[in-house]
Amino acid sequence: MKLDVYLKERRKLVDGFLRHYISSKKKDRDCPKHLCEAMSYALTAGGKRVRPILCIAGYEAVGGTSDNILPVAASLELIHTYSLIHDDLPAMDDDDFRRNQPTTHKMYGEATAILAGDALLTDAFNMISLSDAKPETLITVIGELSRASGPEGMVGGQTVDIILEGKKAKKKELLYIHTHKTGALIRASVRIGALMAEAGPEKINALTRYGEKIGLAFQVIDDILDVTATKEELGKSAGADDARGKNTYPSIFGLEKSKTLAEELIHDSLESIKLLNHKAKPLADIARYILSRRN
Amino acid sequence: MKLDVYLKERRKLVDGFLRHYISSKKKDRDCPKHLCEAMSYALTAGGKRVRPILCIAGYEAVGGTSDNILPVAASLELIHTYSLIHDDLPAMDDDDFRRNQPTTHKMYGEATAILAGDALLTDAFNMISLSDAKPETLITVIGELSRASGPEGMVGGQTVDIILEGKKAKKKELLYIHTHKTGALIRASVRIGALMAEAGPEKINALTRYGEKIGLAFQVIDDILDVTATKEELGKSAGADDARGKNTYPSIFGLEKSKTLAEELIHDSLESIKLLNHKAKPLADIARYILSRRN
Repeated sequence: MKLDVYLKERRKLVDGFLRHYISSKKKDRDCPKHLCEAMSYALTAGGKRVRPILCIAGYEAVGGTSDNILPVAASLELIHTYSLIHDDLPAMDDDDFRRNQPTTHKMYGEATAILAGDALLTDAFNMISLSDAKPETLITVIGELSRASGPEGMVGGQTVDIILEGKKAKKKELLYIHTHKTGALIRASVRIGALMAEAGPEKINALTRYGEKIGLAFQVIDDILDVTATKEELGKSAGADDARGKNTYPSIFGLEKSKTLAEELIHDSLESIKLLNHKAKPLADIARYILSRRN
Repeated sequence: MKLDVYLKERRKLVDGFLRHYISSKKKDRDCPKHLCEAMSYALTAGGKRVRPILCIAGYEAVGGTSDNILPVAASLELIHTYSLIHDDLPAMDDDDFRRNQPTTHKMYGEATAILAGDALLTDAFNMISLSDAKPETLITVIGELSRASGPEGMVGGQTVDIILEGKKAKKKELLYIHTHKTGALIRASVRIGALMAEAGPEKINALTRYGEKIGLAFQVIDDILDVTATKEELGKSAGADDARGKNTYPSIFGLEKSKTLAEELIHDSLESIKLLNHKAKPLADIARYILSRRN
């Protein structure tokens, strides 16, 4: 199967599940309308669903075949979306546009944006708890996801990113920011797919290495695109990192070296999954796609 | 055992567990120092640990005896503390003092406060996932906690509270705010204790009714204290609700009627646990204490 068909089909499954989630939320009298709408606005803004698709692809790569993966995969998008809402807040990155539309706090006000982020984060764990899989597997998944998105993962990376804004980061600090702010959740996405399929340690290790490499590559390429792509391509302000004094791979290593590094990381990611069979082809295709993407 | 001794002993256990949590966090090289410190600051500011103690008391009331309850009980304090940090933010209730010290954003800045809240919320689920109990029980607990603290629970209540600020709420709306903003997590605290002890439906129903009644009473009395107590007693600004145009029981029903209502709720909470044996005595004592508290 060609990658674009694979991505389209998997994205359709994820979007279908997320639509179902939002629509039952809107029918729930305990969920305030204004809050539901803000959550729906942020969640259905046309994200690429990279993390859920990586989770599904990781699951399928080691032999998983059931639809039970969907709620767990979708929970990763809830976490990702909450992090975008909070990152865009005036006290954080202060962004007005995201995915070609006004950010959540611009549409619904800051208080509701903070609360919508909190709600999506909380619901991610609710979604997993309602999944139809072995409880011991779900507990492992919750442990993995919470560690990857918490203070030792994504939130930690975001903290250091903001603290070092306007200061020149050391290379070690830049690596910490990127492997945690973006890398940790991408790594976890692939690993959670493997955990849900109950893969053995060798395969889990292979997918972990794959996830680490593409996770870092993903953020390095994000940095590169912020310098080289247009606002229309990105769906958000271009050149924003530089204007804000963000530490990025191009700002520390230069553009050419950053590109070379991204290529090396993608190469390494492909190497690490060589031991898997043809079912891992989508993962390999996704790694190559990450390198070539323009948004 | 006298209530003050019971509260002191259980609080010591909870505080010990939370100290251990923060100290391993500080040793974890993946957790940024600044973030850890903000989390620790908010978490160790001398809270009464009402929710963890209610969880332990609910657990013990139906025969639970193991220390396995501690991580689950402590996770409730992480959720409560995160909600205080976010509620105090300038875009939310804009409070400068909490528990007799500057609020987290006053000490560490808004960005770190938002992130520390996110981290504590995420870690609550991590803490439960690492607990030593049956996976199916832990999944039920995670479902319960996430529902009670998410958009249909605490976050929902907080949203309506803020939306209706400065507007006169209908009685139905006021009830929604109070049963969700504060009530949902208190109800869940008691229920989670019962779930951890694998109590049968009759006992769970009794504790659920108890939790609902004291949860609402707790917030009604909070409203009353905001009018009648001093800043020193409260550890935060007194009269803040009125100054901010908050909808409270005294503002809608008057002070006397609010006091009567609180008394009735506590009476009902005591009725609902009459079928339990002497092990439920601390729960009964706590209900009476809630009515008489001055902070």
